[in-house]
Amino acid sequence: MTRVYLDWNATAPLRPEARAAMLAALDQVGNPSSVHAEGRAAKAIVERARAQVIAATGAQGYDVVFTSGATEAAALVLAAGWQAVAATPVEHDCIAAWAGRVADWRELSLDSGGAIAPEAAETAGAGALVAVQAANSETGILQPFEAAAAAAAAAGARVLVDLVQYFGRLPVALSWLPPAFYMLSAHKFGGPKGVGALLVPQGWDLPPLVPGGGQEMGRRSGTENVAGIAGMGAAAEAAAADLAAGAWDRVAELRNILENAIEAAGKETIFVGRAAARLPNTACFATPGWKGETQVMALDLAGFAVSAGSACSSGKVRESRVLRALGQDAAAAAAAIRVSLGPATTEEDVLRFAEAWTEKRKRRASRAA
Amino acid sequence: MTRVYLDWNATAPLRPEARAAMLAALDQVGNPSSVHAEGRAAKAIVERARAQVIAATGAQGYDVVFTSGATEAAALVLAAGWQAVAATPVEHDCIAAWAGRVADWRELSLDSGGAIAPEAAETAGAGALVAVQAANSETGILQPFEAAAAAAAAAGARVLVDLVQYFGRLPVALSWLPPAFYMLSAHKFGGPKGVGALLVPQGWDLPPLVPGGGQEMGRRSGTENVAGIAGMGAAAEAAAADLAAGAWDRVAELRNILENAIEAAGKETIFVGRAAARLPNTACFATPGWKGETQVMALDLAGFAVSAGSACSSGKVRESRVLRALGQDAAAAAAAIRVSLGPATTEEDVLRFAEAWTEKRKRRASRAA
Repeated sequence: MTRVYLDWNATAPLRPEARAAMLAALDQVGNPSSVHAEGRAAKAIVERARAQVIAATGAQGYDVVFTSGATEAAALVLAAGWQAVAATPVEHDCIAAWAGRVADWRELSLDSGGAIAPEAAETAGAGALVAVQAANSETGILQPFEAAAAAAAAAGARVLVDLVQYFGRLPVALSWLPPAFYMLSAHKFGGPKGVGALLVPQGWDLPPLVPGGGQEMGRRSGTENVAGIAGMGAAAEAAAADLAAGAWDRVAELRNILENAIEAAGKETIFVGRAAARLPNTACFATPGWKGETQVMALDLAGFAVSAGSACSSGKVRESRVLRALGQDAAAAAAAIRVSLGPATTEEDVLRFAEAWTEKRKRRASRAA
Repeated sequence: MTRVYLDWNATAPLRPEARAAMLAALDQVGNPSSVHAEGRAAKAIVERARAQVIAATGAQGYDVVFTSGATEAAALVLAAGWQAVAATPVEHDCIAAWAGRVADWRELSLDSGGAIAPEAAETAGAGALVAVQAANSETGILQPFEAAAAAAAAAGARVLVDLVQYFGRLPVALSWLPPAFYMLSAHKFGGPKGVGALLVPQGWDLPPLVPGGGQEMGRRSGTENVAGIAGMGAAAEAAAADLAAGAWDRVAELRNILENAIEAAGKETIFVGRAAARLPNTACFATPGWKGETQVMALDLAGFAVSAGSACSSGKVRESRVLRALGQDAAAAAAAIRVSLGPATTEEDVLRFAEAWTEKRKRRASRAA
């Protein structure tokens, strides 16, 4: 039986447009820093992708600094020597890992729906950095990052917005928002794994984390991942076109069908973030007493790929820090799974998943009885 | 007319084995950190490449930490808070750029042939890092890195060996040498651009430059560049096989044919490093009064890709820091070009190049007369 992939927040399948762009780039010999024809052709591939990323994010006035992914993009900003860093407790590990590395680290508090009060971003003050994710990978809950960026900017702080789960799923036009650092990861929107970008308002200073040959406007040295960058640019363009064509409205409908079917299977299942503003594709639910890890393994054997915990991290399934921050107790946090959909997901996928999950749940209940 | 690519030290064409491995990896959905079947399949691709790199470098007892390239690999080591760093003056920019960032930076002196005295590595002392390149990208000159690593280790220092231009062209078996950090760049041996590795002796401490999800044994976080890593592994295996089969002996013959033809065109051309132990594929020569940059442009228009200066850096053609360190005066350093060959180079390529270069040189001489 064909497997059903419902783990798009961990990584999305490669888009055909990205694959084609990568193949063309792989066939182009030449170092983008070389001045000869081969070098210029390689450079043109990188610059085309840069323009595609700017167009897809509406980021006129920004420099696109290509990196090896969002984790490196976050490090590039966080290593820059801020007087203080304030972050929500639901940030990705690539932000949270800096808590012990920054002298003055502050946590922004969340309301009962899981969102920060935008004014909280002011408290960090001048010379500080405020890290706010646009959408959470485990729950899909959105943060009011536009308002937070405005509040922080008014207070003289700078803002780093984690746009990783948001871009391509909800519309953005960055040049309409207060200037901020924005980080992107290609493989979340159909580009290849191992490439991302930091968007930096033009004129903002930022010392390189990786110095050397001076590539990427001196902001990130090293010969460019030309094929990966080409794939990212093509994927960004295709993702923005899909979004504009309404592909994610259909994804939201399927996610709702899925949640309704899970809910119909029994009342004790808790849906996390269902009442909040959230991504169209993410369902996060906990069935007390049934470990998320156990569910993921059983579903994997039955042909379904879903996840427990953050699933972008190192393979160890841990109790979710994010769900605990949302006020769930340890038992509920350990019992949660995340099902995340994408434009290639079908109604049949969702119904098959709900059926398999419900059957496993029944079998478990009968064993427990 | 088909172009002739003679800039292998800037970047090598992608090997077919690498291309095939990348295509297979691109078609595998799944985040290597996910525990389900798709995630495990992606992880297996990364682990296979890791084993290929270990086998190709004879690095049993080393951890292979995949990075976005050698520049990041260098940064990972150099950022680790050494008491002092000693480096040769001919290191690549990805090392040299740290001179202003490390409090106690020392330069190792070179003999007239361009090599350090291995004992010089001792002078850095305990707690220091010594950076020694195995082969120079501009001249091909080799450093006695094995002896330097032994001397530094005896003095309690650690050594970072830049193996970028060396690996795949001359044999290595790292487990037979004193333990050291070794850096690799995939695109120099037929892998894709934008992926590399740092080889770290097992048990050596090294704080991550990019923290987060804990990938790469906690040494470098971020979702892995699965396709790029697959390409690097396949290229490393193929490169080692080519080398063992004698492919680079033929490259050395062609390089000698080239140099002899250039020499026959006129006595004032200076060959840099010709008398030194050097790579089999690199010719570096200066014709006083004829700018390297001018030569590169004229040859590019005639269909030949060669370079002046380091050519892994940002596209600005500068006077060569490396040639100046070798005792060349500013005029000679500005008049040098580098021609670098690979296993796909043919005798016809080399003869066509020598003919075109000689003709341009004659035309220039007649204009000057």
